[in-house]
Amino acid sequence: MREFELIDWIRQLPGPSRPDVLTGIGDDAAVLSVPAGFDLIVSTDTSVAGVHFPHGTAAYDVGWKSLAVNLSDLAAMGATPAWVSLALTLPKLDADWLKGFFAGFQALALPHRLALIGGDTTRGPLAITITIHGFCPNGQAVRRRGARAGDALIRIGRLGLAAAGLRWQLARPESERASPLLDPFEQQCLQALNRPEPKIGMDAVLRTHASALIDVSDGLLADLMHVARSSGVGAKVDLDAIEEFGWLSEHFGSSEARDMVTRGGDDYALLAACAPAQVDLLLVAAKALGHAASVIGCFEAEPGCRIHHHGQIDTVGGPSGYEHFT
Amino acid sequence: MREFELIDWIRQLPGPSRPDVLTGIGDDAAVLSVPAGFDLIVSTDTSVAGVHFPHGTAAYDVGWKSLAVNLSDLAAMGATPAWVSLALTLPKLDADWLKGFFAGFQALALPHRLALIGGDTTRGPLAITITIHGFCPNGQAVRRRGARAGDALIRIGRLGLAAAGLRWQLARPESERASPLLDPFEQQCLQALNRPEPKIGMDAVLRTHASALIDVSDGLLADLMHVARSSGVGAKVDLDAIEEFGWLSEHFGSSEARDMVTRGGDDYALLAACAPAQVDLLLVAAKALGHAASVIGCFEAEPGCRIHHHGQIDTVGGPSGYEHFT
Repeated sequence: MREFELIDWIRQLPGPSRPDVLTGIGDDAAVLSVPAGFDLIVSTDTSVAGVHFPHGTAAYDVGWKSLAVNLSDLAAMGATPAWVSLALTLPKLDADWLKGFFAGFQALALPHRLALIGGDTTRGPLAITITIHGFCPNGQAVRRRGARAGDALIRIGRLGLAAAGLRWQLARPESERASPLLDPFEQQCLQALNRPEPKIGMDAVLRTHASALIDVSDGLLADLMHVARSSGVGAKVDLDAIEEFGWLSEHFGSSEARDMVTRGGDDYALLAACAPAQVDLLLVAAKALGHAASVIGCFEAEPGCRIHHHGQIDTVGGPSGYEHFT
Repeated sequence: MREFELIDWIRQLPGPSRPDVLTGIGDDAAVLSVPAGFDLIVSTDTSVAGVHFPHGTAAYDVGWKSLAVNLSDLAAMGATPAWVSLALTLPKLDADWLKGFFAGFQALALPHRLALIGGDTTRGPLAITITIHGFCPNGQAVRRRGARAGDALIRIGRLGLAAAGLRWQLARPESERASPLLDPFEQQCLQALNRPEPKIGMDAVLRTHASALIDVSDGLLADLMHVARSSGVGAKVDLDAIEEFGWLSEHFGSSEARDMVTRGGDDYALLAACAPAQVDLLLVAAKALGHAASVIGCFEAEPGCRIHHHGQIDTVGGPSGYEHFT
């Protein structure tokens, strides 16, 4: 397969019919139309082999996850996704790998009516950069900085399972990483790591009822602190309200489970701040879509983050999540 | 320097004040406003160390060029650039390198009032992916497929100099690649390679007078064939009308000079198809901005591309430019 053939092959992949894509793949740039009355929401994420996913991860999972992390950023603005641009850097043109990658990519893109509008294919160490575009009605994007003291802290999606999945994944020989595990909980954690479900489909509810939103990619505490700091408030988290903390404690002990839940990266859950009167509306909408959702704390006037666990309180100040450079 | 410090440092870089950026860097996504009456034009390009620029290239040049190649794609649509998203993958956080990179990036971004709206910083082999956004009045983007038999073929910008620059660059030890050369023509070629000038600023003229446009990144012939094929026409190129073919022949001989001019990549010149009556308007506008611009051939009904040189004619069919995968 040559580069021109790859681009032709990508062009003929099935995609949604979107009248807002005036010119798609195949010119110097895409020509697009943002509907009147809407703001454009744009986010970019890079996934590098050996950094964001272990070497030997199945191509399908790489395609799924590299799109999922971008969809998660749009979900965290209350936006409706529309278009993606895909920059694919590959060590070689391997038709089987590419088929797997695009099968995973399309499995997420098609149900969400995402159009692939362009990108780039280059030779180099395996890495994927996606820029995703979506819409919000004018002025309704939900930002990090709207949390108020007294708001409930809601999580939508599981915490810590991806960190556990990574632990199990790395313990296996590289050649076996694409094959399934037998234990159902290990399997669930591996699924959380490799095929995170972005919390798309709640955009209208979140725009109406959430006062602040973020997606948890660098760990619960680090991302919660981003919301708290930019909103000028603090937060309280009740660890015992997060049921997966209990599950992980059984496998790894309480101390490590706590690390996984509060500092593990790659969760792609949403954290929402929400006035107490609106909490039920939000939880019902999340559960209707099959997402684990619950109140796990609240926002308070006092800065910093306090973790409650079995009657004990730990106070956390600075960022403490996953850092790419160490 | 830690990752959070890098992001804070990037956020405080000077940028234009743009009322169409509602939320910039620092949330899960940017919130943007496309002006009424305009289409959104989007392009993505990746630059990988050792593939798109030689290892040892000055950080300033890497910053400049990775933005320039994206601006060139917008110029090739007749678009006005507005916003960029920057995904930066770095082997380590080197403050000196980053200062150099952003000095080069800003040297191009600021005069064009480009706002940095977000992106990603990740650890990995050095690579830069930029997604650039710009505007065209509704329906006025200039595409590849509008060339008509009888249109003049105009080039805006030099051809083949970057290929010569790459030859000279690679002949030098890696440690010396950041220091200047003494011979003025070698210096000009190195400049063409490392600091290509995107042909921005002609967008209104191009929208009005060009019937088709492309930027030459993969070599004159390959990109000309893209225009010809998608327009359903052929083209004739007069090699002797390209004065730099003469300059390069003096240094490399006629055969190699011809390869550089017709197949060398990295030119970032524009090729425009233009009705004969409009040619002068286009040339005057290009020259007013300091760009080398001339008629180098024409479009014809007969498919394929014919190269005229000293009375001889060579016919070229398929794509023949730079391929990333070999």
